[in-house]
Parts: sequence; structure tokens; C-alpha cells
Amino acid sequence: MKIGIVGGGQLARMLVLAGYPMGLQFQVLDPAIDACAGEVAPLIRSDYDDENHLQQLADWAEMLTFDFENVPATVASTLKRQAAGFYPPAEALAVAQDRLHEKTLFWELGIPTPPFATIDSLEELHDAVARMELPAVLKTRRLGYDGKGQRVLRAPEDLKPAWEALGGVPLLLEGFVPFQREVSVLAARGHNGEIAFYPLVENTHRDGILRLSRAPLLAPQLEREGWNLARRLLERLNYVGLLALEFFVLDNHLIANEMAPRVHNSGHWTIEGAVTSQFENHLRAVLGLLLGSTAAVGHSIMLNCIGAMPERAAVLAVPGAHYHAYGKAPRPGRKVGHLTLWAEHPQDLQTGLDRLLPLVGLESPG
Amino acid sequence: MKIGIVGGGQLARMLVLAGYPMGLQFQVLDPAIDACAGEVAPLIRSDYDDENHLQQLADWAEMLTFDFENVPATVASTLKRQAAGFYPPAEALAVAQDRLHEKTLFWELGIPTPPFATIDSLEELHDAVARMELPAVLKTRRLGYDGKGQRVLRAPEDLKPAWEALGGVPLLLEGFVPFQREVSVLAARGHNGEIAFYPLVENTHRDGILRLSRAPLLAPQLEREGWNLARRLLERLNYVGLLALEFFVLDNHLIANEMAPRVHNSGHWTIEGAVTSQFENHLRAVLGLLLGSTAAVGHSIMLNCIGAMPERAAVLAVPGAHYHAYGKAPRPGRKVGHLTLWAEHPQDLQTGLDRLLPLVGLESPG
Repeated sequence: MKIGIVGGGQLARMLVLAGYPMGLQFQVLDPAIDACAGEVAPLIRSDYDDENHLQQLADWAEMLTFDFENVPATVASTLKRQAAGFYPPAEALAVAQDRLHEKTLFWELGIPTPPFATIDSLEELHDAVARMELPAVLKTRRLGYDGKGQRVLRAPEDLKPAWEALGGVPLLLEGFVPFQREVSVLAARGHNGEIAFYPLVENTHRDGILRLSRAPLLAPQLEREGWNLARRLLERLNYVGLLALEFFVLDNHLIANEMAPRVHNSGHWTIEGAVTSQFENHLRAVLGLLLGSTAAVGHSIMLNCIGAMPERAAVLAVPGAHYHAYGKAPRPGRKVGHLTLWAEHPQDLQTGLDRLLPLVGLESPG
Repeated sequence: MKIGIVGGGQLARMLVLAGYPMGLQFQVLDPAIDACAGEVAPLIRSDYDDENHLQQLADWAEMLTFDFENVPATVASTLKRQAAGFYPPAEALAVAQDRLHEKTLFWELGIPTPPFATIDSLEELHDAVARMELPAVLKTRRLGYDGKGQRVLRAPEDLKPAWEALGGVPLLLEGFVPFQREVSVLAARGHNGEIAFYPLVENTHRDGILRLSRAPLLAPQLEREGWNLARRLLERLNYVGLLALEFFVLDNHLIANEMAPRVHNSGHWTIEGAVTSQFENHLRAVLGLLLGSTAAVGHSIMLNCIGAMPERAAVLAVPGAHYHAYGKAPRPGRKVGHLTLWAEHPQDLQTGLDRLLPLVGLESPG
């Protein structure tokens, strides 16, 4: 079975590594000659809007999927004309590409969100802040990730510089949620409508970038709430594949932050920490296979490696530590790999965590 | 870090898949253009005794290893002249290539073996059978695997046909062990002499081919005995890497059958069923890293797929089943993949096993 992946980053790479044992073959399409999935599968080097190369991928593949949501709309329309199917559905990609569409859909489905307002001028920004109060977060509607394309507004004098930095493209102002913690729900949905939810994950961000995930977060009531909200989204989008939904936790309730129609950084712990990894379950869903168990096995902490990988020997000297290098060149702020610390019992994680945190530039779990 | 692997079969393929997350790069050398590791790493198509190609691999790699023991002695001597180191040590390969050397070493180390005798003529065979009694097993000293190159002698009239089938190369006659079960010890040894033993595995063969492995086999006394015997071998050979030692169990004691100086089919369950897989631990050992925990997580049954892979959808419909296709063309008697059935508790394996056995052509676990 031949699978084409549009996008050749670490998510594609881990999909490929999960797919080889399943007897799948892969090609990935990416504009970067050094796209890291190209180290593990044949790479078609191509811009995303190059119809000829997209068609080449679609002609080869029996099924197509994506490792990121910001594919130009032309990609989906090009692929729709091909014989090979693709998942997740185009609507899910379109919704996730635009924070306004996303928030509007959440609102329609009764998924709580922060207050939000579209901003197309400095005047509209002043008006919205007057209604919403500060702090608030100004974000580009499109193409934001890892904290890029957003500014926190804490005082009236922050408005003009933020507008000058981000303005010129459609923006969204969101009320700032004084959250106590951040969590995410990962779920896979199959062709037949079957849904499998992973245990709730707790996430820690620094400067908008995920640094640490912990699973399972044993919070049954929050988990049930998160699963229920995610179910509405999966069913409304007639979704197929893996989807992540990130939430703020405020006073023991969930407020949706954003969705990702793909495998997700906060699910990397599932490689060691779940019966079936998010990567395998995404492939199972896309291929119309039954989903695998999403149950956690033991307890896991995933730590992102930002900028550069820590030394392999130092990491692997820590009992229960697993090393995941993506084969990417070091660069400040870049996600180049992750570590997973695994133990059967949660109390056995602390010693290893204390040794790993400094290796990834974190002194405390935050 | 660049690793060269001599041999490009499924063992190399699984080493590569375990090594990519560790940030390793691979090239494999194999005479077959369709060597299945070539699907996941660059392949140097070459005969094993082609010095130029071996040198090309050694020039590229910083460390070399093997996915099979029957490398010509010239390979080790060629590689010894190269800058890159290689493991396991040449002596371990040489010992494993010749059943007489292997049995002799076992005998020196006090590792129990069946009675054995070298056979170089039909007359010697008659003499040896007279001393040893039937049944006995006549084996080629070199190049045997998966039951190939051996004949069971049950009655005097079996001697001549067996000699005619196998004679002309050096042979070994071994007493037949009326074993109650078969087990294997897998262990990794690092540069620093550190040894990590996996839990004892129970194996079921059919027609000389491994069909099913079950781990952990909860038999503490046998396990201790097996670990002690394997330790002697690892230390005597100054071994580095993963080694498998197969035993017959007779009246609650171990009788060594054979060793394999490499990752081993009876260790494939460690991918899902141990904290660190045999593949990762082989790479850790070879690279001079500390070894990872060999503890079992839950309970696993590994089923070999012989001849052809069962349908992916049927296998993955079984809760706890994992599919491992090697990307090899179907052919009668060929190992083309394996399945691993995993459960937290051993009593939860039976239902899944009953569904998987017919898919791999076994009606009962034997």
C-alpha cells in the first residue's frame, strides 16, 4: 500500500517510521531539500502549489495525507481531482487554517472559547479591546504556529506596536484566559465513524512553544469533558485521521484554544506510552482499518528539544529515557527532537525528570 | 553517527527503524537488489566478499555491525583494516559459524550441550551412532539456519540417506534431546562489560523454523540458570552487542542448542513488550552507550509469518495485535514478517491468540 504525505517534517518522518512495520510504502512532498522525512522515505522536492508534482505524488500513491494543516487550498482542490483519496477531509484543513473559522465552528458546536473579534484596522483593535478588556492576544488569522504570529496585549500602549508588527493581514483578537493548566485531547476517527480517544495530556508551553507533555493526566471529569467536546468536532467535520484539540483549564472547565487536523506534538509520548501510537492510529484511520487501543501503558513525560539535541549518551544514561532525533539541523527555536521518559509508576518519573530537564534547557517543569 | 550494516534482511531493517529515532544514519550492504532493509536505508548491492564495496561501506561508516553471522571470514579481515570499528567481535562470528567450534566453546565453559561428534564419512557416522544411540541429528557444521542443513536420524536405515543428502561438507552429529520445551536467553553487553539480560523467552518451532515466542516466561530458576550460562559466553568472547542463546529444557535444566551473535527472531517481542527493544540495545552496545532497561512491559506473544503475510486488516482487528511486515516478496518457507500480540495481563492474551493463530497457519500454539 502506497501512501503520499504532503509535508516532510518530523510528523511525516514519524508517520513513515510507524508505517513501515505495517507494510506501507511512502513518498513525501516538501519544498525543502533537507526535509527531515526525506531521510527515511523518498522525497519529492516541490512547492506545495506545484500542480505537476502534486499530481506525480497522487499518481504514485493509493492514499494521501498531510503532516501540517497550512496546505494551500489549491492543494486540496488539485488532489480532489486525483484518483487517490486523501484524509483528513479538506474542510478540516480549511477550518484549522483560519482562526476565525475555527473559533466560529467551536462556537456553533458549543465548544467554549475565549471571547474573540476580527481585527482589520487599528481602530477596530481599540474598539475590541474596549469591549474585551486586557490582557488579550492579537493573532494572525492564518499561518500561525508555535507562538509565531501573535502578541499579548497587557496595557493600552501595547496596541499600536502589536498592530504595526502583525497588521496588514486579517487578525483576530482573543481574550486572554488566566488558565491554571493546559491540556490536549488526541483522538482518531475511522472511516466507519469509530472514535478512539487518548488519555488526557497535560502540556507546558514556554514562549508559545510546547516544551513538556505529561500523560495520562488522571483527571477523569476533565477528560470526559474534553472527549465530549472533541467528539462534536470530529463528527461535525466527518473527520478521518488523528486530530488534536488544545484546551485551557480554567476553574476545572475547558476552554478550547485551537485544533490541529493531524498528529500532534502533544501526542509523541504515545510511541512508548500507549498501546498504539498516534502515528499508527492516524494511518489506520486513513486506510480504513480498525483503530488500535489508545490506552496508556505506564506513565510518560515528553520533553521537546528546541534548537539542538542534547547529547545522546547523556539522555540514554537516564533509566526510562528514549531519544527521538528528527535529523534536523540545529537552529535557535527549532524543534529538532524530543525525549520521552517512561516509567510504570508515576512516582518513578521524578528522578529521571530531574536529570533530563537541564538537558533540554528547562530547570523546572514550569 | 553513521552505521554500516553488513546484511540487509529483516534484522537490519528493524535495526535501522530502531536507530532513526536515535539520530543514527545507516547504509546496508547485501547481495540482493531487493534486500528488504534497502527499503528503509541506502543499499550497497554487493557480494559479501567484494573488498571494494566493503571498503566503501567502511569508509562511509563510523561503526559497523552485522545482521547475520555467516559473513565470510574475509569480511572480518577486510573490515579489521578499516578505520571504523565493528561489533560483535570477529571471534564471536567465527564461533557461531561452525557448530563444532560453538559446541566446543560451550563445553569449555561448562555450558551443557547434547553429546556431539564430528562426522566426515559414512563410516564415522555409523561409529558415532553406535556410541550415541538414536535418535540423533546430523547437521552441517557451517551455514545451517531455520532447520536447513540437518536431518533427524531415528532408525539405522536413516543414516545412508542423511549422509547422501548432507555429506561432502564437514558434519556434526548431535544427540537428540527429548526436550519438554525450548527457551532462549537474549542479552546485550556493552563496551564497559555491562550486561543486560532480557526475561526468558519460550519458543515453539515447527520443521526447524521458529513459529511462536512467548515472554516473559515466568520461570525464575531456569531464567537464572540461563543468564548465568549466557554470562560465561558473553564474557569469554568479550562480546559487544546483542547475543541470543537457545536452549532445550530437559527435566528443568538447560541444554544449549545454539548461539546467534546478533539480534534474534525470538527477541522481536521486545519492540512492544520491553522497555528497550533488542534492536535499540544492540545499537546502544555497539556505540558504547549505556544499555536500556530490558524489563518486560506486560506480556507478549510473537508469531512468525511464514511464506506470506496475513491480511493487514484481519490482524489489526485483533485488540493488542501489532503487524510487522518486512517488505519481502512471498515465498514458501520464507520469514516475511511477524505479529506481536500484547496485553497487560497474561490471561488477556488467549482470545487474541485464538484469532491470530489461524492467520499464520497455526491451529494451536503447539
